[in-house]
Amino acid sequence: MAVSPLAPASFHVLPVIDGVRFAAIAAGVRYKNRTDVMLAELAAGSTVAGVFTTSATRSAAVLDCQAKNGGAKGGKAAFLVNSGNSNAFTGKGGAASVAAIADAVAATMGNDASRVFTSSTGVIGEPMPHERITAKLGELKDALRADAIDAAAKAIMTTDTFPKGAAAEVRVGGKTVKIAGIAKGSGMIAPDMATMLVYIFTDAVIGHAALQELLGEITDRTFNCITVDNDTSTSDTLLMAATGASGVDVTGDAAFAAGLEKVMLDLALQVVRDGEGATKFVEVQVSGAADNKDARKVGLAIANSPLVKTAIAGQDANWGRIVMAVGKSGARADRDLLSIRFGDITVARDGFRAPEYSEEETSAYMKQQELVIGVDLGIGPGFATVWTCDLTHGYIDINADYRS
Amino acid sequence: MAVSPLAPASFHVLPVIDGVRFAAIAAGVRYKNRTDVMLAELAAGSTVAGVFTTSATRSAAVLDCQAKNGGAKGGKAAFLVNSGNSNAFTGKGGAASVAAIADAVAATMGNDASRVFTSSTGVIGEPMPHERITAKLGELKDALRADAIDAAAKAIMTTDTFPKGAAAEVRVGGKTVKIAGIAKGSGMIAPDMATMLVYIFTDAVIGHAALQELLGEITDRTFNCITVDNDTSTSDTLLMAATGASGVDVTGDAAFAAGLEKVMLDLALQVVRDGEGATKFVEVQVSGAADNKDARKVGLAIANSPLVKTAIAGQDANWGRIVMAVGKSGARADRDLLSIRFGDITVARDGFRAPEYSEEETSAYMKQQELVIGVDLGIGPGFATVWTCDLTHGYIDINADYRS
Repeated sequence: MAVSPLAPASFHVLPVIDGVRFAAIAAGVRYKNRTDVMLAELAAGSTVAGVFTTSATRSAAVLDCQAKNGGAKGGKAAFLVNSGNSNAFTGKGGAASVAAIADAVAATMGNDASRVFTSSTGVIGEPMPHERITAKLGELKDALRADAIDAAAKAIMTTDTFPKGAAAEVRVGGKTVKIAGIAKGSGMIAPDMATMLVYIFTDAVIGHAALQELLGEITDRTFNCITVDNDTSTSDTLLMAATGASGVDVTGDAAFAAGLEKVMLDLALQVVRDGEGATKFVEVQVSGAADNKDARKVGLAIANSPLVKTAIAGQDANWGRIVMAVGKSGARADRDLLSIRFGDITVARDGFRAPEYSEEETSAYMKQQELVIGVDLGIGPGFATVWTCDLTHGYIDINADYRS
Repeated sequence: MAVSPLAPASFHVLPVIDGVRFAAIAAGVRYKNRTDVMLAELAAGSTVAGVFTTSATRSAAVLDCQAKNGGAKGGKAAFLVNSGNSNAFTGKGGAASVAAIADAVAATMGNDASRVFTSSTGVIGEPMPHERITAKLGELKDALRADAIDAAAKAIMTTDTFPKGAAAEVRVGGKTVKIAGIAKGSGMIAPDMATMLVYIFTDAVIGHAALQELLGEITDRTFNCITVDNDTSTSDTLLMAATGASGVDVTGDAAFAAGLEKVMLDLALQVVRDGEGATKFVEVQVSGAADNKDARKVGLAIANSPLVKTAIAGQDANWGRIVMAVGKSGARADRDLLSIRFGDITVARDGFRAPEYSEEETSAYMKQQELVIGVDLGIGPGFATVWTCDLTHGYIDINADYRS
């Protein structure tokens, strides 16, 4: 599989986060000749918080994480993630597999199973061969290293064409706090939340309630504003651990929140940049909506429209399809107040094609790899930004032949 | 453009409806060397009713039809439809074009402009060259014939690969009433209502209010239950005329309603069969939902999922993606009560892959051109049927290069 043309030039160099160690291994869950399990060991006292898919058919691992989120504090914690099998729609056996993995991790690491958070990603509905994972836990423990987060990022990939990482360093009260995150995801990506796994680590001090609230707020502006194919996974999981090793309390700190948002947005956009078959990266900027909620509706209607996405793939400045998407979004709109631009080129305003519209100029713009679609509804103060990619033959190739 | 592999073997032979005459002509609105305007003349006293797109950016012609629907009765009426230009998002000039066409038709036919209903389909946002249409009205009038409905069906096509027609004859009170309809549509097809133009004619006697109510009810079970790409047109229009020539009053008659539903469902399914790039026809049967609304949500989530549609294109019995779509639908669902079948083959039940599941048997089924996906939620009495097609390279080919 060729690396996405929209990929960053290289993997971000991620800082070591004091209090976290990583290991990855090839357990043969499904794939051959690659790592497919990662373990993150979190120092005693680490705060853990998470955001999860809203799917009614969410996986056993997600249900288990939700039950544990905000629960017991204290001892060491661990994240254990496998690729190759999502353990979703695997009935009671799926829940037993999660329990078996969590218990085995707890026994190996010497902590409580209530502090072991697991995720699984890959094919849905196949029985989970959890014994292949538990058989490797001793080796994983022995391999734990503070500087192995990049190996963890690789082990959780499925149809991803590149590993995803992002980091920030924030000054709080004269001291430095570090944040580092990894993610996987490239298909089955849609808000609520974007279909992906995300793990973020910081050495800051922060309590569960404050961290949980912060994650929820920022998720709404980042992972919930990206879409590849409008399909929502059964396994979406974002887990964040704050080890407290820096000794710096960041509760309510704006700089920390901004740093975290930078990391989360960076990871979210990397997922879009790895959208299955993507050749164009598209930012949809919506303004002038009745409110922010309406603006997001319009942005997602545009970003999810197969007709808009195929036009972008074809480098066609087909703004009529943008009008269609605005119309179907369910948001308040008035044709005669609507204006549309591609980059800085206004193509339509006042309910009509812009008099200065130049097909040649606009077509030249559409040949760029990174595009901005701007829509102003002219009604109110609401705005939103949504990110997506185009819909290409590559998407069909990947998804018409995923299981085999 | 090759005819869809899912097309009916031939165009239905449609009966002559007393009180209606048709003509089609090549006016050069956009296309070359084909007819692109159709005129239907409706006898004095005909009842007209219609159902229209709910798009907030609907076209000038749709707005005009909505204003006229249920208005003045009495004299002759007419439907005038062009392909090649949708006259949508064409500002005040668009409304002026509609008025110009309606006035010219009225002058030519000798009826009132308030009884002239127009539709336009094709590219969005291009100025409408309505003078090319009005220049041809004399010729169109001279060409009117009772048996030319098939020519009308051809003139309204855009990316359609075959003309669409359906008919029914109904016995009411010992007499025969006839219904004949035509439709166009193959992309930008999604409920509320399916993106298409539909014209239905009957020689029955029925008042506006009764006909309007009947159309609304049946649309919900037919055109609003099909989807090709989840994109909703700015121009969706269904118009029906009852000339009354048979002298048979069908108000409240169940047989007439059933005949009309047969025609509407037939036309709706022909639109799916001409879905852009379609190679598989898929019926999604949902049962056991909390209510019918939830059942339709589940059906549409499955039918609109790019991952489900690409799996079908790849002949892959990827029922895990069905689970995903059920989960994201927003309908009430319980993983452990859910069962899924392809045709008569149960692939999953009780929250798990069916023990008797055979990959070989299921894969063989997926090679068929016509597929049934059955989902039972096991919760309540709600059911719905939704129809769709697969998502293929052909869809990308057609839509990445539509305007050029």
